[in-house]
Amino acid sequence: MEVGFLGLGIMGKAMAINLLRHGFKVTVWNRTLSKCEELVQNGASVGETPATVVKKCKYTIAMLSDPSAALSVVFDKNGVLEHINGKAYIDMSTVDADTSSKISEAIKAKGGYFLEAPVSGSKKPAEDGQLIILAAGDKALYEEALPAFDVLGKKSFFLGEVGNGAKMKLVVNMIMGSMINAFSEGLTLAERSGLNPGTLLDVLDLGAISNGMFKLKGPTMLQNSYSPAFPLKHQQKDMRLALALGDENAVSMPVAAAANEAFKKARSMGLGDLDFSAVHETLKVPDHSS
Amino acid sequence: MEVGFLGLGIMGKAMAINLLRHGFKVTVWNRTLSKCEELVQNGASVGETPATVVKKCKYTIAMLSDPSAALSVVFDKNGVLEHINGKAYIDMSTVDADTSSKISEAIKAKGGYFLEAPVSGSKKPAEDGQLIILAAGDKALYEEALPAFDVLGKKSFFLGEVGNGAKMKLVVNMIMGSMINAFSEGLTLAERSGLNPGTLLDVLDLGAISNGMFKLKGPTMLQNSYSPAFPLKHQQKDMRLALALGDENAVSMPVAAAANEAFKKARSMGLGDLDFSAVHETLKVPDHSS
Amino acid sequence: MEVGFLGLGIMGKAMAINLLRHGFKVTVWNRTLSKCEELVQNGASVGETPATVVKKCKYTIAMLSDPSAALSVVFDKNGVLEHINGKAYIDMSTVDADTSSKISEAIKAKGGYFLEAPVSGSKKPAEDGQLIILAAGDKALYEEALPAFDVLGKKSFFLGEVGNGAKMKLVVNMIMGSMINAFSEGLTLAERSGLNPGTLLDVLDLGAISNGMFKLKGPTMLQNSYSPAFPLKHQQKDMRLALALGDENAVSMPVAAAANEAFKKARSMGLGDLDFSAVHETLKVPDHSS
Amino acid sequence: MEVGFLGLGIMGKAMAINLLRHGFKVTVWNRTLSKCEELVQNGASVGETPATVVKKCKYTIAMLSDPSAALSVVFDKNGVLEHINGKAYIDMSTVDADTSSKISEAIKAKGGYFLEAPVSGSKKPAEDGQLIILAAGDKALYEEALPAFDVLGKKSFFLGEVGNGAKMKLVVNMIMGSMINAFSEGLTLAERSGLNPGTLLDVLDLGAISNGMFKLKGPTMLQNSYSPAFPLKHQQKDMRLALALGDENAVSMPVAAAANEAFKKARSMGLGDLDFSAVHETLKVPDHSS
Repeated sequence: MEVGFLGLGIMGKAMAINLLRHGFKVTVWNRTLSKCEELVQNGASVGETPATVVKKCKYTIAMLSDPSAALSVVFDKNGVLEHINGKAYIDMSTVDADTSSKISEAIKAKGGYFLEAPVSGSKKPAEDGQLIILAAGDKALYEEALPAFDVLGKKSFFLGEVGNGAKMKLVVNMIMGSMINAFSEGLTLAERSGLNPGTLLDVLDLGAISNGMFKLKGPTMLQNSYSPAFPLKHQQKDMRLALALGDENAVSMPVAAAANEAFKKARSMGLGDLDFSAVHETLKVPDHSS
Repeated sequence: MEVGFLGLGIMGKAMAINLLRHGFKVTVWNRTLSKCEELVQNGASVGETPATVVKKCKYTIAMLSDPSAALSVVFDKNGVLEHINGKAYIDMSTVDADTSSKISEAIKAKGGYFLEAPVSGSKKPAEDGQLIILAAGDKALYEEALPAFDVLGKKSFFLGEVGNGAKMKLVVNMIMGSMINAFSEGLTLAERSGLNPGTLLDVLDLGAISNGMFKLKGPTMLQNSYSPAFPLKHQQKDMRLALALGDENAVSMPVAAAANEAFKKARSMGLGDLDFSAVHETLKVPDHSS
Repeated sequence: MEVGFLGLGIMGKAMAINLLRHGFKVTVWNRTLSKCEELVQNGASVGETPATVVKKCKYTIAMLSDPSAALSVVFDKNGVLEHINGKAYIDMSTVDADTSSKISEAIKAKGGYFLEAPVSGSKKPAEDGQLIILAAGDKALYEEALPAFDVLGKKSFFLGEVGNGAKMKLVVNMIMGSMINAFSEGLTLAERSGLNPGTLLDVLDLGAISNGMFKLKGPTMLQNSYSPAFPLKHQQKDMRLALALGDENAVSMPVAAAANEAFKKARSMGLGDLDFSAVHETLKVPDHSS
Repeated sequence: MEVGFLGLGIMGKAMAINLLRHGFKVTVWNRTLSKCEELVQNGASVGETPATVVKKCKYTIAMLSDPSAALSVVFDKNGVLEHINGKAYIDMSTVDADTSSKISEAIKAKGGYFLEAPVSGSKKPAEDGQLIILAAGDKALYEEALPAFDVLGKKSFFLGEVGNGAKMKLVVNMIMGSMINAFSEGLTLAERSGLNPGTLLDVLDLGAISNGMFKLKGPTMLQNSYSPAFPLKHQQKDMRLALALGDENAVSMPVAAAANEAFKKARSMGLGDLDFSAVHETLKVPDHSS
């Protein structure tokens, strides 16, 4: 199976390599062409523009950094639209539902096929082919894409109309954002009440609410170490968008709203580029020793 | 090893039976004596009063329903205090730190030894000997009690001074209370935004925040089924006490505070005796069809 | 002084009549022309289209119901833009900063002068010429408009660049929205704690936080009467926009966020078209008698 | 009319002087006797102990700093209880409902009459005889006390059973605490969005939510000046007690809960002894210049 692949950032590179390893023929493109080299060493071809890649491949996958990059690759000169007639485009970037709809409509208007397929999971799952794929749009295309999804992820879902993939991701990230705040409050309460927060981690780990995020983030939060796996400003943006989705549908979400304000507080403290677990810092007592 | 056991409710009965099965000689007492029968069939002796049990056994474990029962068994006529001199008392009931301290001081003043040891886990883990034991108080007694704790729980912790067991339990339950609200908001947002909340459960289950509580409660919450494993009014009481602990120590906990108000809303709706997951009902749109 | 006036809803009609009474020559336009009759009886001329009015008058004031009406009057065929060259346009509608900027840029590009001037105050202050006018944009135009503002309002402010009028209004309405929630919680707490909420109104009225809104809304809220002076859905929209403004500027506003969720809850209960004080209903105990 | 007066702090001194000026014969007592001197210069007699004062006067008013002082004056050796038989005791201190009930019961058991009468208003209203008096308990005693209340306050209320005075005060202070947070958020949003917060004060002052507290605190908050008229730690304590009252009665109060967490945040920043308006500091951006 021959696929195009647009976007070789941390995620995209790992995903394209996985496809190559599993026998896919892959033609890659990246805005900075030098990033294609490692892929070429792994057997990839290179396309000069998104349009070239789409022209060459029946299926093209994109993994771009944000909505503006996702739009640019499609709508700009030498973009996806130019040769999309009769071809399939699978956008796995994380974008909002509006961006996704705009791309979907343009591609369908030009005679192409579209699937949005944002993923849950970051660098490590991408490398291990353990992403969770939240697909929506063209059902037939979803089924044709399954061999690729089987390589990239441990599980894929088809969620119906375009936009639902983005929405599902927001819901998951909103729950995650409230949970990291609940966790941070618990760690802080333990510490300030004279308990050993490390023991709290052990106790939590044995109980019904034990989960991978607490295990991963707990020890680093206790060391005030927030190397960014998922930047706080992106987490806060997802909380904001999830709350906006709730607003549209008249869903009151007081816990998510409180968590969102904590993330905003963290942003105002200049922590937006650190890991989202840096929201922990909002609960600290200011150091009067300095 | 011979132990006394006071209190044969759902938890206490399961725990006493486990001790008998593992070769402990157990003398039981319960306010309603008829509840002792099943234990006698399993090989237990019966003591007529708490005082009798304590007189007979070097170690007495208590598992009572609430602070007032815990106090009553110790301080009332024919209570634990009457023969505690030189004996050890291990209170595994869930009580607040103040109650625990009151009992501790009285027992030590009479020449006894005291350990508080509240547990995390409900009926099933009690039956399976899979409780998490949060002990605090007399360190030497904790070590002597380990053979019993090994039978009752999968893990025990010694947390320092009396009161720390109660506090640790509050912290854990506070995190849990915020999490169930975050989860409920996510389920509601999914449903109201046109996503399948059952699929949300599947997606969550594959990711970093997957946990036993979501797995257990998700399906029942989607069916509006709230058979009480842990009554909402108790969860809300624990949130209140955790927030009070935070107040003492000047810890701001906006997410827990928002979650607590949701539980209070649920209580005002008459849901206090249902499972704590019934907080889900606070987010429902009123049914105008009736 | 001759002015044009576009939009004769509740607010616009009262304002245009005030201008006529104070000796202004007024040419009015309204989408539904029949609404112009009362103004004609008061001495107004009628313009057939927004373009006609602008062509005739050096200054044209607009008071339209929402952003889409405000945009339509400017950009549609026979709209304001067609004859704006050398003329002045004062938009007193309540619109968001983006809408205001879009109108401002288009008018300036065509050689016109623009002032945004949203007002604080509803029907009664409009009739009494007691509005508060929050102007921003062209400073010279603001000064030329003062004779009209003196008739329409008790006070006008010049707030700098276009968008600041809209922002100031959002800030005021956000404080108001949090306050009505604080008030509603207090009334509910009084009632549910066995106090007479009517007495609470009397006590409040004597103290430092006594204010016109409590005086006006208190008695009607106690009667569960929410005839819409300012619809709840508009109040919630202003809370949302104020929170979005805070998000842009990394301002954490936990109280406003909690208030916003209460308004959303009220919307989900179907109360969006009632007065914003209907948020009071979100705190009521459900009636189990039916 | 002869009255005893216990407690000559800031409030008590002003109140006792008012009584003297209006022709009451006053016998004063204070823990630190030197504080009685100014009163003696104004014509007061001095009693050596609370018991002496009560013995001498048919009516004794108390204005003490906190619940423990209020309890001590009644229950300690040479306390009020010793001569209360047939006498009347009016406690105007701000205490919780439990403390008030304890004092009430002891006094009635000894054959005395009791009225609680906490006040709304601080130093200035006390000096000007402009307090608001929230009385509860013995109705007949309330009526006998009216001549004194007319001197001390601008208005008094009889609220029913003992405890209701304390509760009414909590409700008022809770609303006030949420309002100061709403106000602080608005000032911060204005400033951070490029608006002049001083102009916001002017705009607010003209509208329906204009109130004495905004007028008084606004200018000082903008100067980061928080000289304590009502200490933040006391305001937070009242929020906590109001929320506890809501908890008892299953009243969900999400806005007050969010405001309470902000006050706790302020306490954790070491601002507890400043004015309650210092909660404003919780929204500030940390200064990175130092």
